[in-house]
Amino acid sequence: MFLGKVIGTVWSTRKDENLIGAKFLIVRHLDLEMKEKDNFVVAVDSVGAGEGETVLVATGSSSRQTSFTQNKPVDAVIMAIVDKLDVPLKDLLKKK
Amino acid sequence: MFLGKVIGTVWSTRKDENLIGAKFLIVRHLDLEMKEKDNFVVAVDSVGAGEGETVLVATGSSSRQTSFTQNKPVDAVIMAIVDKLDVPLKDLLKKK
Amino acid sequence: MFLGKVIGTVWSTRKDENLIGAKFLIVRHLDLEMKEKDNFVVAVDSVGAGEGETVLVATGSSSRQTSFTQNKPVDAVIMAIVDKLDVPLKDLLKKK
Amino acid sequence: MFLGKVIGTVWSTRKDENLIGAKFLIVRHLDLEMKEKDNFVVAVDSVGAGEGETVLVATGSSSRQTSFTQNKPVDAVIMAIVDKLDVPLKDLLKKK
Amino acid sequence: MFLGKVIGTVWSTRKDENLIGAKFLIVRHLDLEMKEKDNFVVAVDSVGAGEGETVLVATGSSSRQTSFTQNKPVDAVIMAIVDKLDVPLKDLLKKK
Repeated sequence: MFLGKVIGTVWSTRKDENLIGAKFLIVRHLDLEMKEKDNFVVAVDSVGAGEGETVLVATGSSSRQTSFTQNKPVDAVIMAIVDKLDVPLKDLLKKK
Repeated sequence: MFLGKVIGTVWSTRKDENLIGAKFLIVRHLDLEMKEKDNFVVAVDSVGAGEGETVLVATGSSSRQTSFTQNKPVDAVIMAIVDKLDVPLKDLLKKK
Repeated sequence: MFLGKVIGTVWSTRKDENLIGAKFLIVRHLDLEMKEKDNFVVAVDSVGAGEGETVLVATGSSSRQTSFTQNKPVDAVIMAIVDKLDVPLKDLLKKK
Repeated sequence: MFLGKVIGTVWSTRKDENLIGAKFLIVRHLDLEMKEKDNFVVAVDSVGAGEGETVLVATGSSSRQTSFTQNKPVDAVIMAIVDKLDVPLKDLLKKK
Repeated sequence: MFLGKVIGTVWSTRKDENLIGAKFLIVRHLDLEMKEKDNFVVAVDSVGAGEGETVLVATGSSSRQTSFTQNKPVDAVIMAIVDKLDVPLKDLLKKK
């Protein structure tokens, strides 16, 4: 999974019929300092995530393993909302 | 999914027999400012997308979850046409 | 799918027994100007592609959806030979 | 698989119901000199890995092939703890 | 598939129970000039590959399509040992 931040929504009327009701959120990748990176994905929400929240995103076939996304043409799903990171070995970062 | 813009079509006569009738569209990746990036994919259309439209593309096995693409050798499908983006946290972009 | 050009062949005697008879072609990625990029994959041919031809390559599990590649340990397949590209919005490229 | 080092944990209360009990570890990629690289993933632990340990991570659908991760929306799993690397051809590295 | 060279072995005692007996080889990516690149993967061997040999590696779900890797949490498998490359269009490389 990757760590991301929800920054917005994609609206779509014409879409695959199985995707009616899907909420497409724009999620930017975060680095270990929790800073936004340039890359982002559009992910379907399965846990009630909102803008500004830090989330985990699963991609590929794994994104179809939630009750909502099963058998749907989606390749990224928000499957967890992050409470906090605990990174005791973060100082490893500084040695670089 | 990634955000893209349809910019053209690939024509192919000799192809896997399951792909007869498939419409192969060239889709460039877009950034959050809606500017075209250099990378692109060739995706099968499942929603009647046309040139110039902004779309969502699902890749990998997920691209085979539409009625048209099922069991076909395609790894990218246009599964939604984008009406608009709503990015209230876009100013995050400027802080970088 | 990505757009590529067949530039050569990989020969292998010792391989998975399900791959006997497989033709491994070296396919370089092409950009929208049809210029070869540095990256390449080795793909199994399912459509009779030959050296110098422009092709479409499907990767991942999708590459196992042809009659020849089914249930085989291959992650890239040539599933179409390209006749031509039609890119009316190509001038978008020049604005960059 | 990629070679990584466990450097921390992600805590999440609101998550897909199938993920209750999952341990989300932050794993940084390692290069062949065993130095941490910038990129990282959040992987589910299936072998009792702890912070500071060098591990192997399988991604994609393969990450759902452990008894714990089966049918769950996870795309990265720690499936082995590394004892040591044996790289007799490492001097190839220096020729570059 | 990608073209790689086997340069070493990863030893692991604590691993998923389905991986007992698996041989984890370190495979560096090769370019078309057969020079080692910086990136590498750890792949399970299914064809008796040894250090120094040039191989093909299949990744993702395709890596579980050999008799040994079936249903196992591995995302990269060596499925062919390369005898030689035949690249008549290699001079294309020089035009760049």
